[in-house]
Amino acid sequence: MVNKAQCLANLKRMIDKTAQHGLAYRPHFKTHQSQAVGQWHRELGITAITVSSLKMAEYFADDDWADITVAFPTNRLEHARINRIAAKATLNLLFMDAATVQALDQQLKRPINALIKVDTGYHRTGLPFDDLTAIDAVLAAIDAATNITFKGFLAHAGHTYHVRGRAAVHAINRQTVEAMQQLKANYQQQYPGLICSIGDTPSLSIAEDFDGMDEARPGNLLFYDLQQHFIGSCSTSQIAVALACPVVATDANRLELVVHGGAVHLSKDSVTDHEGLTFYGYVVQLNADGWQAPIEGMYVKKLSQEHGIIQCTEATFNRFTPGDVLGILPAHSCLTADNMKQLTTLTGEVLGMM
Amino acid sequence: MVNKAQCLANLKRMIDKTAQHGLAYRPHFKTHQSQAVGQWHRELGITAITVSSLKMAEYFADDDWADITVAFPTNRLEHARINRIAAKATLNLLFMDAATVQALDQQLKRPINALIKVDTGYHRTGLPFDDLTAIDAVLAAIDAATNITFKGFLAHAGHTYHVRGRAAVHAINRQTVEAMQQLKANYQQQYPGLICSIGDTPSLSIAEDFDGMDEARPGNLLFYDLQQHFIGSCSTSQIAVALACPVVATDANRLELVVHGGAVHLSKDSVTDHEGLTFYGYVVQLNADGWQAPIEGMYVKKLSQEHGIIQCTEATFNRFTPGDVLGILPAHSCLTADNMKQLTTLTGEVLGMM
Repeated sequence: MVNKAQCLANLKRMIDKTAQHGLAYRPHFKTHQSQAVGQWHRELGITAITVSSLKMAEYFADDDWADITVAFPTNRLEHARINRIAAKATLNLLFMDAATVQALDQQLKRPINALIKVDTGYHRTGLPFDDLTAIDAVLAAIDAATNITFKGFLAHAGHTYHVRGRAAVHAINRQTVEAMQQLKANYQQQYPGLICSIGDTPSLSIAEDFDGMDEARPGNLLFYDLQQHFIGSCSTSQIAVALACPVVATDANRLELVVHGGAVHLSKDSVTDHEGLTFYGYVVQLNADGWQAPIEGMYVKKLSQEHGIIQCTEATFNRFTPGDVLGILPAHSCLTADNMKQLTTLTGEVLGMM
Repeated sequence: MVNKAQCLANLKRMIDKTAQHGLAYRPHFKTHQSQAVGQWHRELGITAITVSSLKMAEYFADDDWADITVAFPTNRLEHARINRIAAKATLNLLFMDAATVQALDQQLKRPINALIKVDTGYHRTGLPFDDLTAIDAVLAAIDAATNITFKGFLAHAGHTYHVRGRAAVHAINRQTVEAMQQLKANYQQQYPGLICSIGDTPSLSIAEDFDGMDEARPGNLLFYDLQQHFIGSCSTSQIAVALACPVVATDANRLELVVHGGAVHLSKDSVTDHEGLTFYGYVVQLNADGWQAPIEGMYVKKLSQEHGIIQCTEATFNRFTPGDVLGILPAHSCLTADNMKQLTTLTGEVLGMM
């Protein structure tokens, strides 16, 4: 279930914030993967988007999105799809090695833009931002390519997902912004107009210091989730999705409810609270307007393929019996949405996904 | 990718073993969720199946499966679907409380069978096998129902998934078989012909002691996976599925490969090896006949939504470069198949899933 009004509030807040900081806002659409939800963005003036796969780029290009960044290392084997998308949309792809640039350029029938992925501290992908030799080698391949134009540098400070509290997120954002400023200073004479693109939802939700950055790509803020809540990016009232789950069994000795809502629905991604408890979701009471605040003393403790086990307290155990339907606020909304493959608004509209 | 020949070998082994022990074999189809793979079973003489949701029951009833057990607590809200399925197939549903039996019976337009789910030690769902008062209450509701007939007791010793080694699995199987024998002794005079159904893949792969049991429901053995391997249920050569993943980046300093194969493909379910290392998959070299044995010194270390990070050693790092495609043996094949929504055989046949 998706609360559209809350999504729009979350989205408008980010549109305003990025505008205040002079950042172009290019939201990440991997969170919702829905042309219908894309339309909500379009109505708020968004024209450029981010996706996490070429398949997703094609899905949105088919819905006339004309400026798409694929924030995932380019797979040279997918050149046929790249050519199809580039015939309809401006396509901005990520590169980290000269061989991929050269191999792809030979297959391209249309021009594309290149972003060099740099690592500012997350250490997942990207060339170290201060390894100018490595960056120069990729730039040389781009400059030599027929169909590839250098657009700028892209970073994802995903290590904000592993910290707690605003101070820690501020520190990581600062590290990323400084790294990107340094890169820009190094290369802007050679490539006037190059952009610096940053991305993670915690930094963009919490920090206020983006001097010299050109573009922001956060996506999760549309829905938010418990992982973002415990990082400090949002309150639980800003979480805009819940999984509706029927109660199918109870165990009075263990104070547990069993719901139809398991790993194939929520995903096995978990969240750890401030006391160190790792779990999969909070429980909310559904009502005519959506859902209420999380019920204290109830959480999703364990997941099998189809089963969710909800731990209750003596005070909360009797709130639900088999035949009731409760809501679960997910640990990670992107993976839950990806599993469910469709979204239902509070007015009952079913929104298709990729 | 699915190795059909290995699936058939795994399946035939279980057909033979259950036959030797006088057990009816009712395989769990949640592992593959595919009518095409169901057909492989049919050709080997299987006529009765297990599924994990009513939706899945309907998918297979639509393909003319005529005897279906839903090994999940019955959701009384789905009575319309239950009536649709019961019009085509013998439907065996799980009950654990009298209220659900009574509520559903009022909605039923066709007869169904009831199995009482009993807990023999896993403590996920089911009435404690020795709580005869609770069992009698459900039996009384079934006896009083118009459209519900008692068929027997069903147990799932899922705690075998949390142990290591054959001795530990033997002990859990023994506990379950003894509990079920005791139940049968208590109730067979009152309900002659009642069945005792057991289910988990580790017990059925490893144990040899099923006296008095009537039916076995393991499913995962069709594909097996690394979780089963580390429990002791199978060798890695018996694992019949692998995820094909393109290499898209490398990091020589960290000895890491980045592949397009993340949480939305493999799921976030992990496995822990005998040294306590928790990871998401092993790496195999693909070849014309399928794949080779896992490459020592390579494993899937981390997953994001679309990224998989593979840890290598100095000796293995150079085996793959961007543009290559490698295979990953998954931690949990059921969840990986569920994510992928289709299977491709080694001869290139694409098999649809639910």
